[in-house]
Amino acid sequence: MTSIKELSKQQLEEMHEQLKEQYNEFQARGLKLDMSRGKPGAEQLNLSNGMMDVLKADGDFCTENGIDVRNYGLLEGIPEARRAYAELLNVSPEEILIGGNSSLNMMYDTVQRAMQFGVYGSEKPWNQCGKIKFLCPAPGYDRHFAICELFGIEMVVVPMLSDGPDMDMVEEYVNNDASVKGIWCVPFYSNPDGITYSDEVVRRFAQLTPKAKDFRIFWDNAYFIHHLGPDHDTLLNLYAECKKLGKEDMVFTFASTSKITFPGAGVAALAASVNNIKQITKLLGIQTICADKINQLRHMRFFHDAAGIKAHMEKHAAIIRPKFQIVLDHLKNELAPLGVARWKEPKGGYFISVYTPDGCAKRTVELCKQAGVVLTPAGATYPYGKDPHDANIRIAPTYPPNEELELAMELFCICVKLAAVEKLLAA
Amino acid sequence: MTSIKELSKQQLEEMHEQLKEQYNEFQARGLKLDMSRGKPGAEQLNLSNGMMDVLKADGDFCTENGIDVRNYGLLEGIPEARRAYAELLNVSPEEILIGGNSSLNMMYDTVQRAMQFGVYGSEKPWNQCGKIKFLCPAPGYDRHFAICELFGIEMVVVPMLSDGPDMDMVEEYVNNDASVKGIWCVPFYSNPDGITYSDEVVRRFAQLTPKAKDFRIFWDNAYFIHHLGPDHDTLLNLYAECKKLGKEDMVFTFASTSKITFPGAGVAALAASVNNIKQITKLLGIQTICADKINQLRHMRFFHDAAGIKAHMEKHAAIIRPKFQIVLDHLKNELAPLGVARWKEPKGGYFISVYTPDGCAKRTVELCKQAGVVLTPAGATYPYGKDPHDANIRIAPTYPPNEELELAMELFCICVKLAAVEKLLAA
Repeated sequence: MTSIKELSKQQLEEMHEQLKEQYNEFQARGLKLDMSRGKPGAEQLNLSNGMMDVLKADGDFCTENGIDVRNYGLLEGIPEARRAYAELLNVSPEEILIGGNSSLNMMYDTVQRAMQFGVYGSEKPWNQCGKIKFLCPAPGYDRHFAICELFGIEMVVVPMLSDGPDMDMVEEYVNNDASVKGIWCVPFYSNPDGITYSDEVVRRFAQLTPKAKDFRIFWDNAYFIHHLGPDHDTLLNLYAECKKLGKEDMVFTFASTSKITFPGAGVAALAASVNNIKQITKLLGIQTICADKINQLRHMRFFHDAAGIKAHMEKHAAIIRPKFQIVLDHLKNELAPLGVARWKEPKGGYFISVYTPDGCAKRTVELCKQAGVVLTPAGATYPYGKDPHDANIRIAPTYPPNEELELAMELFCICVKLAAVEKLLAA
Repeated sequence: MTSIKELSKQQLEEMHEQLKEQYNEFQARGLKLDMSRGKPGAEQLNLSNGMMDVLKADGDFCTENGIDVRNYGLLEGIPEARRAYAELLNVSPEEILIGGNSSLNMMYDTVQRAMQFGVYGSEKPWNQCGKIKFLCPAPGYDRHFAICELFGIEMVVVPMLSDGPDMDMVEEYVNNDASVKGIWCVPFYSNPDGITYSDEVVRRFAQLTPKAKDFRIFWDNAYFIHHLGPDHDTLLNLYAECKKLGKEDMVFTFASTSKITFPGAGVAALAASVNNIKQITKLLGIQTICADKINQLRHMRFFHDAAGIKAHMEKHAAIIRPKFQIVLDHLKNELAPLGVARWKEPKGGYFISVYTPDGCAKRTVELCKQAGVVLTPAGATYPYGKDPHDANIRIAPTYPPNEELELAMELFCICVKLAAVEKLLAA
């Protein structure tokens, strides 16, 4: 096949007719599929069902150091959970704060605390700093951007390059603009591109010399062990790099088991310097007495240790790798020949990020929706929902069963082509 | 025996010698008991052990309306939990928002949201209102006061009378001072006095005409079904009274299962008007995706419904009623004859509130501590930790086994007497 750019108007019109026909057939089927969010599928959820009754009614409910998890206490989390997270994130247990069921909630609370009270080393609360800014590598995670928008934090778009954010721009802003208080990063299998930051990018992060003394890197390590197979990316340990330079207060790392065990019922964690952890727990101790330690113990009895968690992730990979392959195969077979899209093949994470021709993303998502397949809204992957090129679409392959995913991708490719042809015809 | 006030100096000195001897014997025993917090005891925790494996690995994980609780969704909570709370709190399910594991966390977040964004109907966020005040019926719950102190909200002490807060003072402040944005109440078996607000007090709350349009009653219904026996108090439904007057936006009600199932691993809830719930969920949807619905389902499968929860509370009562009796017996036998303390006999809740002679509470707590029994710090039940009379001590009978509680109360009574005699001798 030929790239559609090289087609004559008549050829385009013929193709439009064909596509329209294929699309109408799909619409007639009355599909109802939701691919809008990165949700694990049922088969993945089943992997953790054993956790449901791993604690027995007549069992023992004490942590390894003899604390009964059924009562108040242990604000920082149970020791076995802190140790497992410490091992997985390459920090020490006292640098881990175990949270509730949601790392998003921990991130939001971390921003809210900074706004109201400042972070360790702040001269004043961010609320009192006038206009403040966060750098937002984009495309990125819409929920990060939603937090900034809610708090009135100005978002500065930083383009994602092939090995992470444009670090020239990051350095320029962070090192010279005191109103830049933070940056959102999903450094490992980034949401949505699936890019893992290169060692050089991570080192340049550690070497930042922020103009704002209370600048923080929000390192959302959401997919830290979420590989698709043995041939996986590796991420340099930012915290360790910072520590070498005495800059460990600069980074907050977040992780959770939402996509390891159960979304919305997992165990989240924050890794940070002892200074940061102390400042946070002092405030956290006013907010709550402790997180749900029974769920922490349930997780640890199920997994035993960090190695158990890693082994569990291989089972997830076995389920979702074929789903990613389905998406990639459709893209390759149906879009590549016509030159109407580009994408990366991620080695982990939850998404495949597709770039349509400029100005075609919204239309593609709209077409899919009208035929019963809901995708993440176009633009959602950019601050303020504004994709400057209207090109990026985030595909979340995990939730639908394979047969439905096949159908959805067939439709998706028709819609991309249709949108692209429409665009060319209207030009 | 005679009230110690009527004793001669010599008699006092003899008594002091005797008490000192008894005290020294206690000290020599090397006790190590913690009665500082309202924590359920092990026997109470065992009542809910069946909940641990009520969900089975091969079971069904769907809500009554077919939503899989193992995945994201249902920000407001699962329908069966909303309905049970609605029944227990006498509101409708859409007026219930199910939270995470901690009602304290919900209260803190509610205050923080109000500070940052305002509440429904606020003209501006409380952070931008200059000096704001909360009324604090005292003695009260130290963690309420800690939230105010953290946010720099000025606390105005309102004396607790026998049927609730001094409502003349509450009306005077709320109806005339626009800087009064809230009041903390534990209306049912108040912490620490065990007082239930009278119907008249509740009606006067509903009839408030706040100067601040965004004034809120923080109705911490922590002990809403926590009776000690069948002869229990009843609390008029504030929300219903407010609704009759079209003032239902004025009240936030909080409750949790922390002292029904497991402290720190229960299910908390907020009851509020639909306007309030809408305003809160809009913000909450940026903070998190959902609370832990598996734990909600676990609770509902264990209890089935509101009636099941109430039946469960009778089992708690059977365990803790004797503990309250131990405390009351000691007070009655050892302190009443000497006229060195007064207290109320609560019909529910978690505490017995003892008033020593003025200026003796701190000393009593100190003496207990030095003999190995940790009580809630004297003063903790008042804003800023300052009991103007240095008289109130909160006793939490539930946590220690009965034999230890007997010992602790024996010591406690010696310490109260010792402190009272010391005071008289020093006068």
